[in-house]
Amino acid sequence: MIGIKSIASYVPVDGVDNYAQGVKFSKNEDFIISKIGSAFLPRKAATQETSDLCVEAINALFINNPDLKREAIDALIVVTQNGDEEGLPHTTAIVQAKLGLPTNVAAFDISLGCSGYVYGIYAMKGFMEATGLKNGLLITADPYSKIINPEDRNTTMLFGDAATATWMGESATWLLGKSRFGTDGSGAPYLKVSDGVFFMNGRQVFNFALLKVPAHLHELLNDSDLKADKIDAFCIHQGSAAIVDAVARRFEGVPVEKFIKDMAGTGNTVSSSIPLLLEKHMIDGDWKRIAISGFGVGLSWGSAILYRQ
Amino acid sequence: MIGIKSIASYVPVDGVDNYAQGVKFSKNEDFIISKIGSAFLPRKAATQETSDLCVEAINALFINNPDLKREAIDALIVVTQNGDEEGLPHTTAIVQAKLGLPTNVAAFDISLGCSGYVYGIYAMKGFMEATGLKNGLLITADPYSKIINPEDRNTTMLFGDAATATWMGESATWLLGKSRFGTDGSGAPYLKVSDGVFFMNGRQVFNFALLKVPAHLHELLNDSDLKADKIDAFCIHQGSAAIVDAVARRFEGVPVEKFIKDMAGTGNTVSSSIPLLLEKHMIDGDWKRIAISGFGVGLSWGSAILYRQ
Repeated sequence: MIGIKSIASYVPVDGVDNYAQGVKFSKNEDFIISKIGSAFLPRKAATQETSDLCVEAINALFINNPDLKREAIDALIVVTQNGDEEGLPHTTAIVQAKLGLPTNVAAFDISLGCSGYVYGIYAMKGFMEATGLKNGLLITADPYSKIINPEDRNTTMLFGDAATATWMGESATWLLGKSRFGTDGSGAPYLKVSDGVFFMNGRQVFNFALLKVPAHLHELLNDSDLKADKIDAFCIHQGSAAIVDAVARRFEGVPVEKFIKDMAGTGNTVSSSIPLLLEKHMIDGDWKRIAISGFGVGLSWGSAILYRQ
Repeated sequence: MIGIKSIASYVPVDGVDNYAQGVKFSKNEDFIISKIGSAFLPRKAATQETSDLCVEAINALFINNPDLKREAIDALIVVTQNGDEEGLPHTTAIVQAKLGLPTNVAAFDISLGCSGYVYGIYAMKGFMEATGLKNGLLITADPYSKIINPEDRNTTMLFGDAATATWMGESATWLLGKSRFGTDGSGAPYLKVSDGVFFMNGRQVFNFALLKVPAHLHELLNDSDLKADKIDAFCIHQGSAAIVDAVARRFEGVPVEKFIKDMAGTGNTVSSSIPLLLEKHMIDGDWKRIAISGFGVGLSWGSAILYRQ
């Protein structure tokens, strides 16, 4: 059964001091830590394209996994809504060339935002099982610095650039359990790009997440015949400190500490936020079963159980 | 096992008379029929968005399949590189809202061009099997009229707008056999959009297809333990009459007539060209086993066997 074998990431070293941005926008340090959750927001260099972030994350994966051979990779998915080019070609093709991956690799982009990792792991697992492919790399890379207006206090203090690479294949330590998904395009205008600039209605997105995510997680647990106390951790999208805290408080049955909050040095990295948590806390930790949930652009949401084999 | 239950399409009634374009570009009728292959190129109305083409195709699917209930649809994929918005949100979310599909639908866009349908059916089948979803709609809609320069004779005489909707689920008549895929991003510059305008190096794309597709189909047959004469038809991407003819001649072992050529009224409809062939010739026909192959933007290619249950 295809599962998650390893996760690596690339987080740019350069970035923005959020306290300095706070001075500009009259936000104090307490607000920055307790509501936004990030003191530093990594930013890619102007010369780096989305595909370059993907390549960095995959190279980190190669370093961590000497047994992962370039020529064995036969499936590649990039989750992004800010690819290199204008619509076409897809970013995966550019990544294939930059990395010198075999030309027999099956490669496509998935367009999703903050829910993208949850969808992506099932899309990759399913595609590999349906086609008999053996070694898949699921990449997340959605550098919002390409579309953020640095004068927009609603977005420029929230988002950070990052990329992650998840190796999926047989003999994996972590397997995918039940999943649930949702889409409500009536909320599409709350997160969108117009004339190259990103706009977010933060209040509407916050309300959506608070209404949807705790209930969705409870539905997922019911589907899985699991009580909440059987989940070692909840790794939900790190939209902001405020939304993680609010979802944790609204979700009944577990201490709020089970909702992992770790975004002080990254910000909201869109589809990379969940795999960043998993890389840091799950892969080498002692958890046996976790729940993940992503939510955002679309509006779109997805939740799933991951468990140790 | 998830397979193909039904296919419907939307082809705009309005469009461009290719003979009239031929006069403008000094191309005679013989060239237009024998090399390009299309006397008429459907074009969406300026007021129609990509999501509107998707909705039209899905509504046609509903009309053809009274047993397909809107509330039973739980998976939706749109294959496009010319979605409604600038990168985000994804077009599937907009389609969900316009059609009033249930909000528990799992929905995402796949970014691929002319190879997109072959990848898409395996992505949908795999995603549904990995998540337990029951009724998936795979949509293709890539209206190149949004990006084509009407003064560019290399592209404006080739491409037509269309959308298709494929219902995938259990108890399907047509099942998915073996598949093969490929990606070569070194050819990414041959098909790309810059400053909103599509560019194609037709000679390079033709050479790529002629080199790659016949060999890929033979590899697929080998993988499937099938001789070429066991394939009732080859439904390959209708890039142009010239490329379909050239691939058919290069592919040894079957009469060229087995390579279906049917694009006179549609042009090159990108990821819609294969499902348009399947809708018209496969679904209600007497074929038992066919091969499909898509190739283009990326460069990307994919080939597969479909067989009647």
